[in-house]
Formats: sequence, structure tokens, C-alpha cells
Amino acid sequence: MSLRAAVLSIGDELTLGQIAERNAGWIAQEFLRHGVLVFEHRTVRDDRESIASALLQLAGESEIIVVTGGLGPTDDDLTREALADALGGVDLVEDAHSRAALRQRFEERGRPMPAMNAKQALCPVGARCIANPNGTAPGLSARVGQSLVFCLPGPPNEMQPMIRSDVLPIIDSLVGAAGGVQSSVCAIHSCGLPESVAAERIRPMMDRSANPLAGTTASGAIVTARIRATGSAAHDGSIERAVQEIERAWAPYVFGRDETTLAHAVGEVLMRTKDKVVVAESCTGGGIGAFFTSAAGSSEWFSGGWITYSNEMKVRMLGVAPELIEADGAVSQSVACAMALGAAIRANVRFAVSATGIAGPEGGTESKPVGTVWLAVADRRETNPSNITRARRFVFPGDRATVRERTVRVAAQLVRLAAIGESDVPVLWEVPMSAESSRNIR
Amino acid sequence: MSLRAAVLSIGDELTLGQIAERNAGWIAQEFLRHGVLVFEHRTVRDDRESIASALLQLAGESEIIVVTGGLGPTDDDLTREALADALGGVDLVEDAHSRAALRQRFEERGRPMPAMNAKQALCPVGARCIANPNGTAPGLSARVGQSLVFCLPGPPNEMQPMIRSDVLPIIDSLVGAAGGVQSSVCAIHSCGLPESVAAERIRPMMDRSANPLAGTTASGAIVTARIRATGSAAHDGSIERAVQEIERAWAPYVFGRDETTLAHAVGEVLMRTKDKVVVAESCTGGGIGAFFTSAAGSSEWFSGGWITYSNEMKVRMLGVAPELIEADGAVSQSVACAMALGAAIRANVRFAVSATGIAGPEGGTESKPVGTVWLAVADRRETNPSNITRARRFVFPGDRATVRERTVRVAAQLVRLAAIGESDVPVLWEVPMSAESSRNIR
Repeated sequence: MSLRAAVLSIGDELTLGQIAERNAGWIAQEFLRHGVLVFEHRTVRDDRESIASALLQLAGESEIIVVTGGLGPTDDDLTREALADALGGVDLVEDAHSRAALRQRFEERGRPMPAMNAKQALCPVGARCIANPNGTAPGLSARVGQSLVFCLPGPPNEMQPMIRSDVLPIIDSLVGAAGGVQSSVCAIHSCGLPESVAAERIRPMMDRSANPLAGTTASGAIVTARIRATGSAAHDGSIERAVQEIERAWAPYVFGRDETTLAHAVGEVLMRTKDKVVVAESCTGGGIGAFFTSAAGSSEWFSGGWITYSNEMKVRMLGVAPELIEADGAVSQSVACAMALGAAIRANVRFAVSATGIAGPEGGTESKPVGTVWLAVADRRETNPSNITRARRFVFPGDRATVRERTVRVAAQLVRLAAIGESDVPVLWEVPMSAESSRNIR
Repeated sequence: MSLRAAVLSIGDELTLGQIAERNAGWIAQEFLRHGVLVFEHRTVRDDRESIASALLQLAGESEIIVVTGGLGPTDDDLTREALADALGGVDLVEDAHSRAALRQRFEERGRPMPAMNAKQALCPVGARCIANPNGTAPGLSARVGQSLVFCLPGPPNEMQPMIRSDVLPIIDSLVGAAGGVQSSVCAIHSCGLPESVAAERIRPMMDRSANPLAGTTASGAIVTARIRATGSAAHDGSIERAVQEIERAWAPYVFGRDETTLAHAVGEVLMRTKDKVVVAESCTGGGIGAFFTSAAGSSEWFSGGWITYSNEMKVRMLGVAPELIEADGAVSQSVACAMALGAAIRANVRFAVSATGIAGPEGGTESKPVGTVWLAVADRRETNPSNITRARRFVFPGDRATVRERTVRVAAQLVRLAAIGESDVPVLWEVPMSAESSRNIR
């Protein structure tokens, strides 16, 4: 028997499209890893009757329902009341433990508890409270018909830990009782391969009847293969063989599996060789450094860097010759190389990566359209002097945010490729210099 | 009468969380601008019965339904069949015009049409085809019960032009027939107020019966009020009066309306006074600079800065005295002030903002728990020497990513508050120094 789950998200700001709903996808992925298929997401507005009626409908079709949102202290937070309705119109009573936790939370912050927060300690008769270590809203769990319902707060930083500590263990025991994991999944991440090329290389595994079955998704500059094995293929090693086949087909662009981020992968490689990297950023404005330091422990391999957004900063902080900027422009091979080398030498580390480009929407020209970015990697341990800095020109498609996001990820991948000795492989969105423009390069 | 709409998205990759659903929010925003409220989003898997039953349920509750996805050529694309079921089990017949368009599309690309694509020209009896200029899948429209249903392809670059050309004109005529635009919306954004305090200050406007009606949402360090006026209140200036009332109640924390980001707001203030800002970042690793430069045109007011992730970089690049780090630790008032002042002086600009803290998950101590961040703003035009740098201690709740995101936004707000002469207001998550820890501060 296969367990089915549904996710119900609550909020006018979601139904009206003012905020993007992000919880359902995250919950579905976690559940899938634990052997439960999410078959429906539903988002309804802050309306007591709509929430209660969605709960009752979904309870008829699924063993598990996760509700997110509507547990705040304000008048338009109505999930508690709607759950009480779905439980047959039971009363809401104060939960002593939640009340004490709320009071303590405000005391620790040296603030009196606002009167409106008191309602967050209310619990429908027959439901249980779930502690929320990261916010004021406790969660609730209850049985509605045959369905186990978990109501959790909407903010991901509150909801996710509660899923891990209070929902997944119950899921695991339900799945165990239902005969073990029915499916097994794995994700393999790459950066720098076009999705069409990546898919072509693993085509047989993408046939709808294959088991394990692979599918690809592209997000930013990252192409991910997700493999799902069902039945005996979930247990007999098939999925590991398939993963390794994809890793071979996509090398050296593959940087990790599952939760591994590209920032972690860069760190792993640099920690192996005990090298450090710094950044010299123009168009990304600090985004590469922020991306590297998103990985916990990055101080082991990332020292810092310079954000030289203005030309003056490029000259004063990194020693870029003003004549280079004058002659070639700030978005050029020569300036990218000077930035990277200046940064590596000043910080006295092995690697530096620089980015200078036109993120848009303004500033594009015919020869340097919006999306044009020069990325350079300096490697002070390179023995061939002409390879100490290597620059590549990219034209990234997309709006300002997309161009910057892609620049950051490709810059990180270039550092990784340099550190593993694969600086020569072609990378997505790289544009070889035309004869015309190369005339300007010294 | 108010028109109600629902969005139904189709696809296993969506329900399993392998791809994020993005169409519903976009459609809801477009519809809202045209006077139609989307009251529910639903995502179901590639299953004929699930799609048909969702269609029939939604048709009972809404005048307009937009379905996206499931119109491709493969076996798991079942929206056409499900629509035929919802229409009472009608037949699918080939639409000559769609068939010709498909054939032409492949011819233009010099490829023979694969046999599987022929099914994309099928249309349920009683439905109409909608041309798709950007892909192979034509859309479909039909009346199911009292509801007008539009089935459109899933890729946004195909779906969005079809919404604009074929759906919105019909929406406009329906809204016109129903008596014009029934609602009007506005968002007001603040940073640094707790949501409970923000809500308390505008409570009467949040009563469910109020019109205009306000609701608050908190995301990161940003609290937003969304106001919606319906009926005559949408036209008679009520909404502008309500917006101004909230702006007064939340001053000086309010930074803008609707699409205005905090980064834009910082830029607006600095451009007015022709001042510039630089950053000196430790725990945020470049995130403040990346945030500032997310605003197009930020080169007018942002010069760049330093990412001094290691202590060595703090000393070498910003001139922080090693003795300060030795005595107080890198996460301290003295180091935050030295970083900000060093950055402002070296870059020769008026403002600098620095951040040094413990983002976690490791590195916390009893006196400096994870989430502890010192933020300092240097203002070189401050005439009182003891106010040239002002530092504040925060303890941001949340995991590493949340602590960093909140640090970035609060840092930006501190720059804005300094630039408008409001450096003394309390800010959310600030923790006054205890007698114990202040002993260590020089």
C-alpha cells in the first residue's frame, strides 16, 4: 500500500500572487525521500470556511495532510479555528505548555507579550500542540477522518525544523508499518552543461518506462537529474548504478548529490588541497562571496575579497591600471584578469575569481549587450605564466537578477574546475571572442 | 458581483516538488490587476481522473478557471482527455486549423512532425482551440457548468502571451459586464518593526469586515501590509487614505510601496543627498553589497566594499587593530566600528555599514550565541565625534541562511535610517548590552 499526502497552504497573499508559495514543493521533496507521495497541493485564502472545507475534502483522499500558514497572532490567521470546525465544531482551549513557551519567548527578548499573541496558545479539543523553537506560532496535529493533519507555521525557517523533528519521524513509522519504503530517490547536480546536452547523454534512463527513471530540471545555471526507483529497484542497488552512470556521463560538470550545493563542492575541493580563494566582484556586487559563505565552515577556504563596483574602487583597491579601463572598458578581458590577479596577490592566496559585466537592464551596447560578463580565475600556483589568469567571456540570458545569479554560479564552477585541473572544458553561455572584438584585447 | 477565478496546475514534477510551480502566482497577479480575484490554486498530478474531478469541483465555485500544463505530446499529458471527461465524456476530434499550424511549425524548423505530436491538434467537442505562437501545444477553452475554462501550456514563455492575447480581453469584458473593476490593491513595506507591533498599530484596518481591508505578512525582516479595497472603496480615494494612515503609523520603518525594494529605498535616499555607501562585511560574506546592487542603477550610490571574512583580512584590508580582535573578539562592538570607519575612510565616501557576527550553525558561545551580529554604520559627516560610528548588537533568530538574510536587510535599513536622521529608533532583534558584556566594550 502506498501512502498519499496532500499539502494545503493558507493565505490571501498566496492566492492573490503577492507572495510565491514555496512550502509545498519543499515538503513534497522531503516526503518523497521518506517514501510518501504528495499527490496534490492546494492554496486557499484566509477564510475559515474555505480552509475547513479544503481540509475535509483532502481528508477523504489522503492519509497525511500538511497545512502551512494561518497560525499567526492576527485576526486573519484562521487555521486554528478552521481545524476546530473540521473536527466537528470543537472548542478552542488554551494549551498551558504553549502559553508558557510563548510567555518565555517574549521574556527572553525583554518584551511584554502583546495581548493578540495569546490566541496562538489556543488548541482545538482533540488536537495536540507542536513546539515551534523558531517562532511564536506552535503547530497543531489532529486526526480528521482517516487523515493525520499537521498544521505548521508558514515561514520556512519555522516550518522546516518542525517537519524534521515532529512530522518525518511519524511518517517513517507509518511507512514502516505499510511495508517499508516503496520508492527511493537521488538527485545529481551539474553546472555548465546545457540541459539539452545533459538530457541527450542519459536519454535511455529518461524513457517513461525506465526504472530507475531519470528526469532533468534546469534552474539558474544548475542542471539536476532526479532519479526515482520504485519496487525492487528501490532496494537492489539499481539506483546507485544509475547515479554513477549519470555522474560519468556528466563529468566534470557534476558537483554533487542531493543536498550538496555548488558552494559546498567548491569548499570540498579547496579543503582537500588546503587552498583558499578570494573574490573581486563588480557586476555581482558581493554575490559570489555571499554564495561561497552560504556554506557553513567556509572560513576554512574563503578569505574574503573586494567589491569594486565603481571604476575608482577597481583602481584604488585592486590596482587595476586606469589605462586598461580607459582603453578596453571596465567590462573586458584585461580588466577581469587584472582584478583577479590583484585580489589573489593582495590577499596572498592561491585562487581569486573576478566578475565584471553588464547585468542590465541599462548599459548594454551592440558589442557588449546586456548579459555580457567576463569571468577570470587567477591561480598563483600555475607554472605557465600565460595561464596564471584565464578569462572567459559569457553572454548570460535573462533579466538583471537572472544574469547575476548565473554569473555567481558559473564563477563558482570555474573555481572548482580550476582546482580540479579542468580549466579547459567548455562552459554553457560562454561566447568565443569574435575576430572583431579580439582585436581590442591585449 | 465579484468575479472569482481558480488556477489548476498539472504535473507529477510539480506535485512531487521536483519543479516549483510558478504560473499560478503570475496569473493571480495579472487577474487582480484586471479586477478578478483568484481564490484558489490547486496542483494535481498527471492523472486523468484527478484533473477532471478538480475541474468539476472548481467549476462549482468560480466563474473562471485557468488550467496550465498537460497539453504536451507525451502519454502523460492528459489535460485534453480530462477536459473531455469534465464536459460529460465528449469525443476528441482533430481541429484542422491546429493540425495545419503544427505541421507548419515543424516544416519551418526543417523537421518532420513526430507522430506523437498529432494528438496536440485534438479538441474536445464543444471546446475551442487557442493558437500558441511559441510552442507546439495549442490551448483550449470551454464552458464547464457556469465556469469558463482555459487550458494553456505549462511553459511560462508559451502560457503568458496566450493569457495576454486570449484570456485577459475576455476577462475585461466579463468584468465590464459585471460593473467594472471591483477591487484595488496596494502594499506598504517596512523593516525593523515586529509584526505584532506593526499589526497592533493598524488593527482597526485588519478587522475582516473593514474596507479597505489590511493584512500583514512577515518575510525575513520585512513586514508588509497589503490593502485591498472593494466596491466603491476601490475608486473613491479610500485606499490612498488607508495607505497614508499605515505609512504614518509605521514611520520611520516604512520604506516603500508595491514593487519598491529596500535596496531601491536606500538608493532613493542617498541619491537625494548625493551620498555614497560602501560595505565592510564579515558574516554576510558580500550579501549586503549583493543586496544593494540588486537595484538597477545602484552605481549612483554604491561604490563597493570589502569582504573581510578572515581576521587577517579585517586587519590588512580595513586597518582593524589586531589588539581589538585579540581583546574583544571579531564579533564585537569595537571591531564592527573599526570595520565601518576603515571602509568609509578608505573609500572616501560618507557612509559605510559593517557586519560581523556568528551565522552558525557552529561558533556560538554562551555570551555570543549563534545569531549574534554587530552592525555598525559610519557617517563621516556626523559632527559629534562620538557618533561617527554607531554600533548595535542583534541576536537574529533562525538558521544560517535566515540569520544572514535578516542581517542584510537590517543593515540596509540602518543605512537608510542614518541617512534620514533616524538613527535612534529601536530596531527588531536588537539586544541591549547586558552589564556583563558591556564591561568588555572599550
